[in-house]
Amino acid sequence: MIREQLHRIVFQPAARSATCSEGSSILEAARRAAVPLASVCGGKGTCGKCKVKASGSLGPLTTQELGHLRPEEIQAGYRLACQAQVQGAVEVEVPFTADVAYKTALPLLLSGLEPQPNVRKLYLDLPQPSLEDQRPDLERLRAALDCPFETGSLYTLRQFPAVLRQAEWHVTAVLVGDHLAALEGGDSRDRCYGIAFDLGTTTVAAYLVDLNSGQLLSAAASTNRQTTYGTDVMTRIERAHAGGLVELRRAARETLNELILEVCRDAGASPRQVYEAVLAGNTCMAHLFLGIDPHSIGVAPYVPTLVEALDLPARELGLDMAEGGNVHLLPAVAGFVGADTVADLLAAAPADDSRVRLLIDLGTNAEMVLMGRGRMLACAAAAGPAFEGARISCGMRAAPGAIDRVEMVDGRVKVHTLDDRPALGLAGSGLISAVASLRREGFINRRGRLQGKAGAELFASGQWGPELLLASASESGSGRAIVLSQHDISELLLAKAAIEAGFKVLLQESGIAVQAIEEVLIAGAFGNYVDKLDAITVGLIPSLPAEQVKGVGNAAGAGAVLALLALEKRRRAQEIARQIEYVELSAHLGFHEEFIQAMSFPEIA
Amino acid sequence: MIREQLHRIVFQPAARSATCSEGSSILEAARRAAVPLASVCGGKGTCGKCKVKASGSLGPLTTQELGHLRPEEIQAGYRLACQAQVQGAVEVEVPFTADVAYKTALPLLLSGLEPQPNVRKLYLDLPQPSLEDQRPDLERLRAALDCPFETGSLYTLRQFPAVLRQAEWHVTAVLVGDHLAALEGGDSRDRCYGIAFDLGTTTVAAYLVDLNSGQLLSAAASTNRQTTYGTDVMTRIERAHAGGLVELRRAARETLNELILEVCRDAGASPRQVYEAVLAGNTCMAHLFLGIDPHSIGVAPYVPTLVEALDLPARELGLDMAEGGNVHLLPAVAGFVGADTVADLLAAAPADDSRVRLLIDLGTNAEMVLMGRGRMLACAAAAGPAFEGARISCGMRAAPGAIDRVEMVDGRVKVHTLDDRPALGLAGSGLISAVASLRREGFINRRGRLQGKAGAELFASGQWGPELLLASASESGSGRAIVLSQHDISELLLAKAAIEAGFKVLLQESGIAVQAIEEVLIAGAFGNYVDKLDAITVGLIPSLPAEQVKGVGNAAGAGAVLALLALEKRRRAQEIARQIEYVELSAHLGFHEEFIQAMSFPEIA
Repeated sequence: MIREQLHRIVFQPAARSATCSEGSSILEAARRAAVPLASVCGGKGTCGKCKVKASGSLGPLTTQELGHLRPEEIQAGYRLACQAQVQGAVEVEVPFTADVAYKTALPLLLSGLEPQPNVRKLYLDLPQPSLEDQRPDLERLRAALDCPFETGSLYTLRQFPAVLRQAEWHVTAVLVGDHLAALEGGDSRDRCYGIAFDLGTTTVAAYLVDLNSGQLLSAAASTNRQTTYGTDVMTRIERAHAGGLVELRRAARETLNELILEVCRDAGASPRQVYEAVLAGNTCMAHLFLGIDPHSIGVAPYVPTLVEALDLPARELGLDMAEGGNVHLLPAVAGFVGADTVADLLAAAPADDSRVRLLIDLGTNAEMVLMGRGRMLACAAAAGPAFEGARISCGMRAAPGAIDRVEMVDGRVKVHTLDDRPALGLAGSGLISAVASLRREGFINRRGRLQGKAGAELFASGQWGPELLLASASESGSGRAIVLSQHDISELLLAKAAIEAGFKVLLQESGIAVQAIEEVLIAGAFGNYVDKLDAITVGLIPSLPAEQVKGVGNAAGAGAVLALLALEKRRRAQEIARQIEYVELSAHLGFHEEFIQAMSFPEIA
Repeated sequence: MIREQLHRIVFQPAARSATCSEGSSILEAARRAAVPLASVCGGKGTCGKCKVKASGSLGPLTTQELGHLRPEEIQAGYRLACQAQVQGAVEVEVPFTADVAYKTALPLLLSGLEPQPNVRKLYLDLPQPSLEDQRPDLERLRAALDCPFETGSLYTLRQFPAVLRQAEWHVTAVLVGDHLAALEGGDSRDRCYGIAFDLGTTTVAAYLVDLNSGQLLSAAASTNRQTTYGTDVMTRIERAHAGGLVELRRAARETLNELILEVCRDAGASPRQVYEAVLAGNTCMAHLFLGIDPHSIGVAPYVPTLVEALDLPARELGLDMAEGGNVHLLPAVAGFVGADTVADLLAAAPADDSRVRLLIDLGTNAEMVLMGRGRMLACAAAAGPAFEGARISCGMRAAPGAIDRVEMVDGRVKVHTLDDRPALGLAGSGLISAVASLRREGFINRRGRLQGKAGAELFASGQWGPELLLASASESGSGRAIVLSQHDISELLLAKAAIEAGFKVLLQESGIAVQAIEEVLIAGAFGNYVDKLDAITVGLIPSLPAEQVKGVGNAAGAGAVLALLALEKRRRAQEIARQIEYVELSAHLGFHEEFIQAMSFPEIA
């Protein structure tokens, strides 16, 4: 009896793992672990897209790998996932790309979910017409289908004459909800796709899903093209109101269309067979995508045009998917608590969990939801763009070369950059990490002032006062020194104060003590990269044992995928949106007081 | 006590009359008689559009009339309807324009109809938002309206922010069916329009209706722009199938859009406040307008893509009306029995009339419906283009200068032309009239051969044999002689045979004897211009006492208006379409036999 040798493969930074047999490829392991690695050639070793950094027991480099990897990459431990054979325990680091951050949280949520999608494909053998049976095409189809349907779309009707006759009356009818969305020649039931979007202010993520199996086929993310019109929501609102609405709408549409192409290409699917899209975005992004002037969201009393769920024809929104396809926009709650927050909860807050939990979606605007005791209270705090690197002296977005972690080892500063590239700037997670380390070492007081102590030599004298040198001009990838300034720390403190004051108000409103919180969920791709202890050290989240703090990654994307896969989840989203009680902080008497109190870092335990 | 002097005004050719008081204008009388006369200036005497030919007791010519009428017009009895004052009995001849033919049958049908349209306008005073009431605009609207509605259209949602705020929350919501079609600032309830179209192969007619009052505001007709791609249906089907579908669709759309502009301008209405359109067209025209390849209608077994009623967004069809408006396409029956026939019946065949009646819609394709004994049987016969002047040696469409009536007086030929212009050619009604006269005088035998008799000097020897001279080269307006040839008579006989064989088959199928027919309805604008006795003489319709033969004018247009005004009429249209049993003549064993038998003219009684 042969006992099969099984090995454990761990994928970082998602910390997801799989067990697989000797000789499997890393790509196969990634599939088992549901870590979506780009593989354009499907594992033939010809595209070179599945590059990962791997350590542990692996087979030798293949000819294909030698062809695709540069010597310095080989030296750094890079492999092609489809080629490298597992021979023992392996740790794989999936190189940082915007994509990955958006892919990591999904797969576990999907496992075990029985697809119950809004799309049905039905194969039909229709009787041919004759002078004795002159029924119109549509009537013939109606008679053959056992369910009534609406013929909403002209695009579908226009396909009828050619499709029916070329396919000699063997066709597949595609129903989206109770609408006939397409008619395809032959039996195409096995090709049935849907796409979920998380439309963020900065990053847009897309997930292609097989609606038959419920499997995630591919994922991609890209920068929202609207960022060229302003990185923050307020600038875009102003721009839209001042005549830029059409441009902003186009930019959003183009971003989505580019992603549709990308995820379909990666999975070998036709965009014309993507019959439904589910979209979770913050309220302002949704308005811009719909072409609705969001101006009133930006000024008191911050009223959106709509927050309810919408179903709209794909063609009306200009999405390059099935022409008769449907786009479902998840419901939102208020101007600054959007469908992304509802989707977060859909993914991360099961209806039957009655614990007291706090969900924080970190970003330029931090959305917070306090759940428990039969209620859901939400608010939004303007944290400012510090986490995205803006208004930070050497800030940058989380991209290769960004410092994402800072440690103090023996009085020396040690930095880690994304993709191990020479440092280019400081990411949001690096900012939090740096400030947390300095607090622990006593270099920053509770009020956030840099203060000398032993090791004061770490500080240089900068333009505006003392600065912590993170990378010297010679070490950095840009030829300029990368520093953390006093101002940067103040920015973080402001952001932290806004967030803390936010959840304190929610606690106040619901009469729950901070000690009663049983779990904290950090949502947003950003959450994956923030060290929980660092976040607790700087006071971004309440002080809880680490196991009660959970990074749920891009839960908004995951929620959108769930809503794509199961109609019941859409109903649940409506329920969540209705149940959430929105607390307007700007009108809240306690908020200002809490904010002032929160303008200091927590004591170091 | 002053006894008001009342006078009777009769309008021709519609034979519609009104009673009005001394000093009223002809235009006022036309309004009372519901004869829609074009009046762009609204009765000020400045546009000169309301020119009519009037005789009887009228006041003297006004300065405005002297400015607009040419001396020869004054001599011929022309007046401006808005200027000429009624002083006694007056007979008015409404000059021939394509429009008028399409206007004449409507008004009586509409009188007494309680509008129950699909469009509702509701005026709302909304509470202003505040930090204490941050409800989204849409939710605010929902709360204020007492009925649930769908927000189908993005265009409507896009209006929200500006309209609500500019109008300071005093708005009018427009519901079309259960869809919110528009949101307008202030109270605009008094401006609520709908448009009915009869989309014919050759002519397209449009009727603008006030949906509040049910009043017909204006009407217009124009040539279907598709005629430049072929005058008959078959040519267009081929053209569409060979890559011309998009052009043909555009041509139809442009024709309709031009008409929308025209009827709105005439009535001083905004096209953006036309919220619904109802369209009756033959099946092929409907397919082309929808952009559906009609090829399968043109070849056996003549199967259309669809015949059922459709509701589609106006913007999807490219109609220049309210962006959130709805277009309702009336149901059809088969490839050659279209929604126009259903609309004919809607207007001319009340559900409670149980008499045996035959409706004939004369045109290139003649549709026939036999009603009675609880059934409705329909067929379509290819009558050929003779009635529209094609394949007739001097044929032309019914337009100014066309001979529409031919009489034999004392052995001499007397012709009447439309608008009394010098003769340019022979209209379909003129062809029938000429052949009927010749039959009565014995110049044509039953087989349709011209035969000498006394008066043989009327015949000239033409290229293909003897010809009847209708206007000499010097009399005609074109400088060329206008004749009726042996070939023309044969063409008419063919058309007549097809039609007669058609209704004979319907009688056969339903087991009804021709003598049992209690009423014949002639539909189509053409029907207004055909003399009933002439039609009986040549055998186009069964021989019935004149009072049992009714020209119902453009009943299809009238039916479309009814469906626009009352939802109940749309339900009735569906009922009619379902009830009609279609008889396919090409597959019918008896048709060929009947056709052979019908290839002779009836005996002269």
